[in-house]
Amino acid sequence: MCGIVGYVGKKQAAPILLDGLRKLEYRGYDSAGVAVMTAEGINVQKAKGRLSVLEKRIDGGKLLKGTMGIGHTRWATHGEPSDTNSHPHLSRSGRFAVVHNGIIENYIKLREYLTKKGFTFLSETDTEVIAHLVEYYYQGDIIDTITKVMNKVEGSYALGILCADNPDQFVAVRKESPLIVGLGKDENFIASDIPAILAYTRDVYFLENNEIVVLRADEVKIYNTDRESVQKEIFHVDWDISAAEKGGYEHFMFKEIMEQPKALQDTISPRIKDGRIVLDDITLSKEYIDSIDKIYIVACGSAYHVGVVGKYVIEKMLRLPVEVSVASEFRYMQPIVNEKTLVVVISQSGETADTIAAMREAKRLGARTFAIVNAVGSAIAREADDVLYTWAGPEIAVATTKAYSTQLTAIYLLAIYMAQHMNCLTQEQIDRYINALQTLPEHIAQILEHKEEIQYTASLHYNSKSIFFLGRTLDYAVALEGSLKLKEISYIHSEAYAAGELKHGTIALIEQGTVVVALCTVKELFEKMLSNIKEVKARGAVVIAVAEEGQTAIEQEADHIIYVPHCDSLVMPSEVVVPLQLFAYYVASLKGLDIDKPRNLAKSVTVE
Amino acid sequence: MCGIVGYVGKKQAAPILLDGLRKLEYRGYDSAGVAVMTAEGINVQKAKGRLSVLEKRIDGGKLLKGTMGIGHTRWATHGEPSDTNSHPHLSRSGRFAVVHNGIIENYIKLREYLTKKGFTFLSETDTEVIAHLVEYYYQGDIIDTITKVMNKVEGSYALGILCADNPDQFVAVRKESPLIVGLGKDENFIASDIPAILAYTRDVYFLENNEIVVLRADEVKIYNTDRESVQKEIFHVDWDISAAEKGGYEHFMFKEIMEQPKALQDTISPRIKDGRIVLDDITLSKEYIDSIDKIYIVACGSAYHVGVVGKYVIEKMLRLPVEVSVASEFRYMQPIVNEKTLVVVISQSGETADTIAAMREAKRLGARTFAIVNAVGSAIAREADDVLYTWAGPEIAVATTKAYSTQLTAIYLLAIYMAQHMNCLTQEQIDRYINALQTLPEHIAQILEHKEEIQYTASLHYNSKSIFFLGRTLDYAVALEGSLKLKEISYIHSEAYAAGELKHGTIALIEQGTVVVALCTVKELFEKMLSNIKEVKARGAVVIAVAEEGQTAIEQEADHIIYVPHCDSLVMPSEVVVPLQLFAYYVASLKGLDIDKPRNLAKSVTVE
Repeated sequence: MCGIVGYVGKKQAAPILLDGLRKLEYRGYDSAGVAVMTAEGINVQKAKGRLSVLEKRIDGGKLLKGTMGIGHTRWATHGEPSDTNSHPHLSRSGRFAVVHNGIIENYIKLREYLTKKGFTFLSETDTEVIAHLVEYYYQGDIIDTITKVMNKVEGSYALGILCADNPDQFVAVRKESPLIVGLGKDENFIASDIPAILAYTRDVYFLENNEIVVLRADEVKIYNTDRESVQKEIFHVDWDISAAEKGGYEHFMFKEIMEQPKALQDTISPRIKDGRIVLDDITLSKEYIDSIDKIYIVACGSAYHVGVVGKYVIEKMLRLPVEVSVASEFRYMQPIVNEKTLVVVISQSGETADTIAAMREAKRLGARTFAIVNAVGSAIAREADDVLYTWAGPEIAVATTKAYSTQLTAIYLLAIYMAQHMNCLTQEQIDRYINALQTLPEHIAQILEHKEEIQYTASLHYNSKSIFFLGRTLDYAVALEGSLKLKEISYIHSEAYAAGELKHGTIALIEQGTVVVALCTVKELFEKMLSNIKEVKARGAVVIAVAEEGQTAIEQEADHIIYVPHCDSLVMPSEVVVPLQLFAYYVASLKGLDIDKPRNLAKSVTVE
Repeated sequence: MCGIVGYVGKKQAAPILLDGLRKLEYRGYDSAGVAVMTAEGINVQKAKGRLSVLEKRIDGGKLLKGTMGIGHTRWATHGEPSDTNSHPHLSRSGRFAVVHNGIIENYIKLREYLTKKGFTFLSETDTEVIAHLVEYYYQGDIIDTITKVMNKVEGSYALGILCADNPDQFVAVRKESPLIVGLGKDENFIASDIPAILAYTRDVYFLENNEIVVLRADEVKIYNTDRESVQKEIFHVDWDISAAEKGGYEHFMFKEIMEQPKALQDTISPRIKDGRIVLDDITLSKEYIDSIDKIYIVACGSAYHVGVVGKYVIEKMLRLPVEVSVASEFRYMQPIVNEKTLVVVISQSGETADTIAAMREAKRLGARTFAIVNAVGSAIAREADDVLYTWAGPEIAVATTKAYSTQLTAIYLLAIYMAQHMNCLTQEQIDRYINALQTLPEHIAQILEHKEEIQYTASLHYNSKSIFFLGRTLDYAVALEGSLKLKEISYIHSEAYAAGELKHGTIALIEQGTVVVALCTVKELFEKMLSNIKEVKARGAVVIAVAEEGQTAIEQEADHIIYVPHCDSLVMPSEVVVPLQLFAYYVASLKGLDIDKPRNLAKSVTVE
C-alpha cells in the first residue's frame, strides 16, 4: 500500500504534489519521491524517510520548476526503504518516470526477461520492471504501450507515468489498486485517495479496473483497453478531509477492518502459483526443513495469538511439535532451542523490542529464524534468516486488525509451504487448503456485509462490566484475540477461556446478565460447546455465539448468533476473528472512546 | 490425614465411637472402622466407603457389645480404600488392635524385618507394621512395648491401641500428628480433634509429642518415654462444634491454608533418604528415563497452574522439553505424543473427568503416564503407570490451597528424582534443592505468621472491580494461581499477565485506583518488574508487591509490600503462592461470601 498523486496545470507542480503526499502519508511513510517535467526533461527527487526529508531536499518544491509531475509516498513491499527503492522509477533512457501502488506478482520473471534484453535494474522493487517495460514497448503511442504492458504484468497496480516526449500530458491506469481523477479548472489530478486533492477540487472520477486516463491541463480522457473512449459520471465530494483519509469511515480501525479482504488477497494471491505455495525469497531448503525437530513461535500481543493458532495448524499439518511463547518470557526462561529449532517471530512493525531480543537470543542458541513482518526493512526483517512479508499496508489504528489477519495467513502459507517440502500432505489436501485460502477474502467480505447485526448486538451489551470469550482448540486461540481486541479499545475487562476450564474456577464470575461470547465453529466440539453454553446460561449469562452457517442447533441455546460461512476447519480462525473485531469496535464506538488511540497504548512497542 | 477416636467408660462404646467419627469425617471419608472390647475379645468391624456403610453394617453400633473401643475414619495414603486397608488393624494373634493417623516413613523396611520374623501382612497399609511390632515387643508391659515401638518407627503418628489382656484400659501416643484426651465423668476419650468428643465433655488435655496416655473409665495417666508421669493442665473448650471442626477457624479454606507447613512436611519428608529423593513405589527405570524426549503435563484449573511452574522447573533442571496443556484441550488437539513422552497428570481428587480422559488418550498414543494425586485409590491413581501421592489430607474447601502446594512439591520431587537418574545435576545442586525443599515448611510457617498484614492490605482493596496479577517466568506461573484463587472465592474479575505482555493491550484497563499485584521474586528480573510497576503506577494503579526479603528497592515503587523469606529461586513459587491465598481469602471474607462453597463451583469436576 502506497500513495500516488499527479498534477498537470498552470501552477508549479512540486508544492502541490508534496501537499497531496502529506495527505496520503497514512498509506505509507517510509520514503517519498516526486518527478517533475522541467525545461530540462524529467527531474526525479526522492528520499528515504518521512516526507519532510524530501521536502527539505527540494526546499518545499522550489528547486523543481515545472507545471506537471507525479509523486509517491511508499510503504515498502519489495525492497527495503531506501533512496534507490523509492518511487518514481525512471526507465533506462530516462524518458519515462513511473509511480506505482500495488504489487506486480510476476516481476521476477519480467525482470529476467528484461535483463536478457539488456536492461539494468537499479532497485530491488517490483515497480522498476514497469518503467523498463514501458520503454521497451514504446513506439510513439503511449496508450498502445500501456495496453501492451498491462497484458504482460500480473498483479495489482495503480500507475502514474510521465513521458519526456509529452511535456503537457501524463497518463495513469489502474487494476485492483485505487485511483481517482480530480477535475479542476485548468488543472487536473490523479491520486490514490480523495484527501490528496481535496484542497483543490471536489469533483472526481473513480477509475474502474483497466481504465487508462490521459490528463492535460484542460482535458481528461479515459479509455478502455480497446482504446474506446469511456464516459464517466462526475462524483462530487462533500466529506471533510479527516473523514476522507479514513475512507469515509469514522476511524482508521474500522477502515482497516474493512480492508481485510484486500489485505488477505494481497498477501495470499502472489504466493500461489500453479496450485502450489511459492515463497520466492525464502531460503529454507528441503534438507533443512527435514532436519527441524521443533518450531518455536515467539511474539507479543496479537501476534502471539497468531502463534497460538499456528501451533494447532502446523502440528496438524506437519505433525511437528510447535511451542508458542510470549517474547518477553522466552528471553528469560532459558528456552530449549538449538540448530534443529526453527524460530518463527511475528511482528507487524518488525521493531517490537521484546521480539527483537527474543530473535537474537534464538540466533545465539543456534536456531534458524523466520520472520513474519509487515514493515519491510525493519529491524526484524533485516536480522532474520528469512522474512515472509504480510502485505497488509500501513496500519494506523493501535488495535491491530488487518495485520493480525495477514499474519495468520502467513502462518498458513508457511505451513503449506513446509508441507510441500516434507511431502506430508497429499496433493488433494494441499489443493483443499489452498482453495480455502483463496476463498477467504470473499468469505470475509460476506461477514463484513452483515456488520450491522453485530452493531445491534453490541448496542445491547456495551455497558457490560466483564465479558468472557469461550472456545475450544482453534476457537480458543481466536477467543484470545477477540478478548484482547475488546479490552484494548473498550476498557471492558474481558478474558478468554478454554471452555473446558471454565468450571475449574472462572464460572464463579458468571452472574445474571454476564455476557459470554461462545465460539462454536470447531465442528467436532460443537456439542461440547452447546453444553458449556448451557452451563453459563444456567448461571444467568447472556450468550453471543459464533457458529458456522447451517449449525442451527445453536439457536436453541444462544441469545445472539453470528454465522460465518463454511470453510475448511483449519482456516476458520481467519473468519471467526472478523466478527470479534467488529464487536469490539462497535462496543468502543458506542462508549464514545478514542478507538484509534486507546489510552496507555502505543502502536509499536519498541521498549521492553 | 485420618481421624481417630477412643472411648472407655460405662456406656456402650460403639455408638459413641460412630458419633465421634461422624464429626471427624472432614479428616477423611474413604473408609471407617471400629474395634470394641467385647466379652469374646476384640471385635473389629470396618468398611470401605462413607461412615454410613459401617453404621449400617453394625446397626448403629448395636451389634458390638462393650464399653471400650477405638475407631478410625480414613483418608488413604498407603494402599487404596478397601475393607482390608481400613483401620483398626489387628496384630497377628488378634491380641492388639491399632488405629493410626499419620505416615510411617520406614514402613517398608519394618515390613521386611517383620516378614522375616514370620509375620504375615494382610493389608497394604503402613499402619499394619505397628500392630505387628506391638505384638512382637509385648512382654506384658504395654508402656514398655510402646516405647520400643516408638524407637523403631520413623514418621508421624497418633495411635490408639487396644490390648485383649487389658479389658478395662487402652493406650494412645502421639508424635507429629494431633491427639487430644477428653476427660468425662466415669468415662474418658481420645480423639484427633475436639469435635469428636464435644457432645460428651469440654475438658481436654492436648497431648505433646512422645507422650503416652493410659486411659481407664475413672483415670487418665500420662507418661513420657522415660516412663515418668506427666502432669498437664486441663483446657476447657468454649467453642461450638462447627468452629471446632474447622480447627477454630471460620472456614475450612483458612484451616487448609494454615495446614500447609504440615502438608508439605508430610509430602516431602518421607521421600528424602540419605540426601536423595527416594520414591518407593515409582517404577520409572533409568533406561526409560533416558529414553524420554518430552514431558507433557496435563491438568485442569489450579493443577494446570502447577504444571506451568513445572515446565520452568523441569526444563531448567533436566533440559528436557516440557509442554503443559489444559486437559480439556489436550484431548482434542491431536497432541504429538508417543512412547518417548512421559505424560504427567495432576489431580487432587484423581477423579477429574477431563484429566482422566486426557490420561487415557495419552496411553492410547503410547505414552507412559505418571500421576500426581491426593486421593489414594482414585480412578487416576488406579490407571496411571505410576502414582506419586501428595499427602495433603482431605481438602474440604472448594478453592484448593494445600493440594496445590503439595502438588507443586511433588513436581520438585519428580524433577530431582529424574535428575538423580539422568546425572544432569551435581551432588551439590541436588543437596541445594533438597535443602530448599526441607526448609519450605518452616518458611511457609513464617509467612503465615504475618497474615494480619495481608489482612490489612486486603481490607483496603476488597471492593475492587478488577485486579491484575503480574509476574515474569516463575512469578507469572504463580500469578496464574493467585488470580484464580481470588476470582473463585471473591468473584472479583482478576487476571494474570506475563508482565512484559501488559503493554501489548491490557495496560489499557489500568486506571486510577486499579489494584495490581506485582510478583517480584525472580532475582534476575527484579529490575524489569520495577519498570513494570512504574508503568502501571504512572497510569494510576495501586501496587501490592511480593518480594524476597532484602529486596528493599521495592519500597520506592510499590504501595504495599509482602516479603517472603529468601530461598532457592526454583522453589520460590511454593512460598509466593501463600500470601496470594491469604489475600484471596481475606478479600472474600471481607466481602462476606461463602468462602468454602463459592457459587457455581464443585470441589471435584467429574463431568467434562
